Amino acid sequence: MSNTMRRIVLASRPSAAPEPANFRLEEVALPEPGPGEVLVKVEYMSLDPYMRGRMSAAKSYATPVEIGDTMTAGAVGEVIASNCPDFAPGDKVLGMFGWADHGCLPANQLRKLDPGHGPISTALGVLGMPGITAWYGLNFIGQPKAGETLVVAAATGPVGSMVGQLAKAKGLRVVGIAGGAEKCTLAVDTFGFDACLDHRAYPDAASLSAALKEACPDGIDIYYENVGGKVLAAVLENMNPFGRIPVCGMIAWYNGASADDMPLAGAWRSILTNFLHVEGFIIFNHYDKFGTFAAEVGPKVAAGEIRYLEDVAEGLENAPGAFMAMLKGGNTGKQIVKVG
Amino acid sequence: MSNTMRRIVLASRPSAAPEPANFRLEEVALPEPGPGEVLVKVEYMSLDPYMRGRMSAAKSYATPVEIGDTMTAGAVGEVIASNCPDFAPGDKVLGMFGWADHGCLPANQLRKLDPGHGPISTALGVLGMPGITAWYGLNFIGQPKAGETLVVAAATGPVGSMVGQLAKAKGLRVVGIAGGAEKCTLAVDTFGFDACLDHRAYPDAASLSAALKEACPDGIDIYYENVGGKVLAAVLENMNPFGRIPVCGMIAWYNGASADDMPLAGAWRSILTNFLHVEGFIIFNHYDKFGTFAAEVGPKVAAGEIRYLEDVAEGLENAPGAFMAMLKGGNTGKQIVKVG
Repeated sequence: MSNTMRRIVLASRPSAAPEPANFRLEEVALPEPGPGEVLVKVEYMSLDPYMRGRMSAAKSYATPVEIGDTMTAGAVGEVIASNCPDFAPGDKVLGMFGWADHGCLPANQLRKLDPGHGPISTALGVLGMPGITAWYGLNFIGQPKAGETLVVAAATGPVGSMVGQLAKAKGLRVVGIAGGAEKCTLAVDTFGFDACLDHRAYPDAASLSAALKEACPDGIDIYYENVGGKVLAAVLENMNPFGRIPVCGMIAWYNGASADDMPLAGAWRSILTNFLHVEGFIIFNHYDKFGTFAAEVGPKVAAGEIRYLEDVAEGLENAPGAFMAMLKGGNTGKQIVKVG
Repeated sequence: MSNTMRRIVLASRPSAAPEPANFRLEEVALPEPGPGEVLVKVEYMSLDPYMRGRMSAAKSYATPVEIGDTMTAGAVGEVIASNCPDFAPGDKVLGMFGWADHGCLPANQLRKLDPGHGPISTALGVLGMPGITAWYGLNFIGQPKAGETLVVAAATGPVGSMVGQLAKAKGLRVVGIAGGAEKCTLAVDTFGFDACLDHRAYPDAASLSAALKEACPDGIDIYYENVGGKVLAAVLENMNPFGRIPVCGMIAWYNGASADDMPLAGAWRSILTNFLHVEGFIIFNHYDKFGTFAAEVGPKVAAGEIRYLEDVAEGLENAPGAFMAMLKGGNTGKQIVKVG
């Protein structure tokens, strides 16, 4: 066992889209687990849009990553040393180890995985944070009812594909939005969406709005919001009275103001005149429901009733590149990094 | 009894702020009540910001007023002829008679008033549509809890003053926003607000936001939204996690895009990162709760525990002027017109 480990730290804060110079790969001493701590060799780490927020110093629900600190990430791996009787070498665990090939955390911050439940990488996606994000926002804020119409963007991503499949199973008409014809085909053929629009084929919100109107002849009752930008503007023109908009992300605006922004007054008018319920949430406030989620969705994933896709980058050193590409929609399915 | 009546019709649609030329006073034949109908001589009519929306042809929750039709308004008056056994000449009633000195409606569209419960004009304000709008939005969407902080604009208006008094009675810190020092004094001295800011004293959202931060040292938990514009932008920077924003109006934006607009992305970021619950509503969807409202609030008004102010314009012919002034904040308290 080597006595060093590799990690990627925040070298500087991005002013718009992150660039390679914002990240730095370092080799540091492997930590010794203290009392109650567990040392883990990481196998897969997760890349998620929320990490863009942690790179900024702006006030948010989470403390930003400090310059020189390891980038935040959830990861799965194998215990190699443990000072806690609940964990033994060889155990597979999930924890917030960051962008790193090893991690050392107090035992109470780890969740033990049962490899009998499928590949451990699913704990980062379909049965992990993105999965419960989709499930919580759809059910607790979206309040779906059979016969209604739902729209979700990033339709082949880990959140969008789960939202679409759960809503479809509840009897809703489900219309996706994705970047490129291939992803749209995937949304319909693999994930069972009724239709999927390629946002790249529509230059502005007005043309996308017209296409949405055609794809949603009865209007939109639920817009599961994870992108913002042009899609949001187009959707707001097609919402039905008493519609619901769970807001879990706005990837189009993570890099700052964009050409896709729109005046607030128009959105506010839609909220008022359509009696919309718009609610922001971050899943970390709702992890008390993880057991319910896992019990409900786990068996459906095991039975193949809920499908998922992973996009695997090879090697910790390629994490920044995969992350930057993901923010531009370059991935297909849940983006993970095979670390070791 | 004259056999003519006067009414004010929509002469043309305003492109921005309404102008005198958008209204026309007409003298027409007094209608004969048909079977089941009741003829009423109007005493007071209501002027409310929502009427600006009815002057536009834009899609909304309500059908617009057609060119040449009587402007919409609720009004109270005395029955002078009735073809329904439930109503007799001399009865005082509330109905949507429009901007007119007489009105004829089916009996099932009227509510009989008990003059023993106070001046009948209160059925247009503190115990009418504005009152229940305040009560419903605060309680059912705002979900107020003792110790929290609430902000409401148009603080001396019929909605704002009711919201403030109800919230204060529930143990919240209540901060108003109003136009001019006199209204701010009124909000504190007459309606019991803890503080009130004069939005005219702050040239932009940033300076108003700084003032709000000082007036709300623990942040804002509920923003009862009835104005939009600069106030909304300033409030969004001070909302607490899990804050609630009932949206019942946006008077600053009723006349079209304004310098007070702001990019949607900033508002959306606040909704996401503060887990805000934003919900539009229009009280006409919730009149099933009118009995509960009247039973709860009526006795408090009678006992003087809830105070109200009326701003009375004299004469139907002065309704357009009073309406145009109200949209600019020229009124103090509930704007009504003494018609006859």
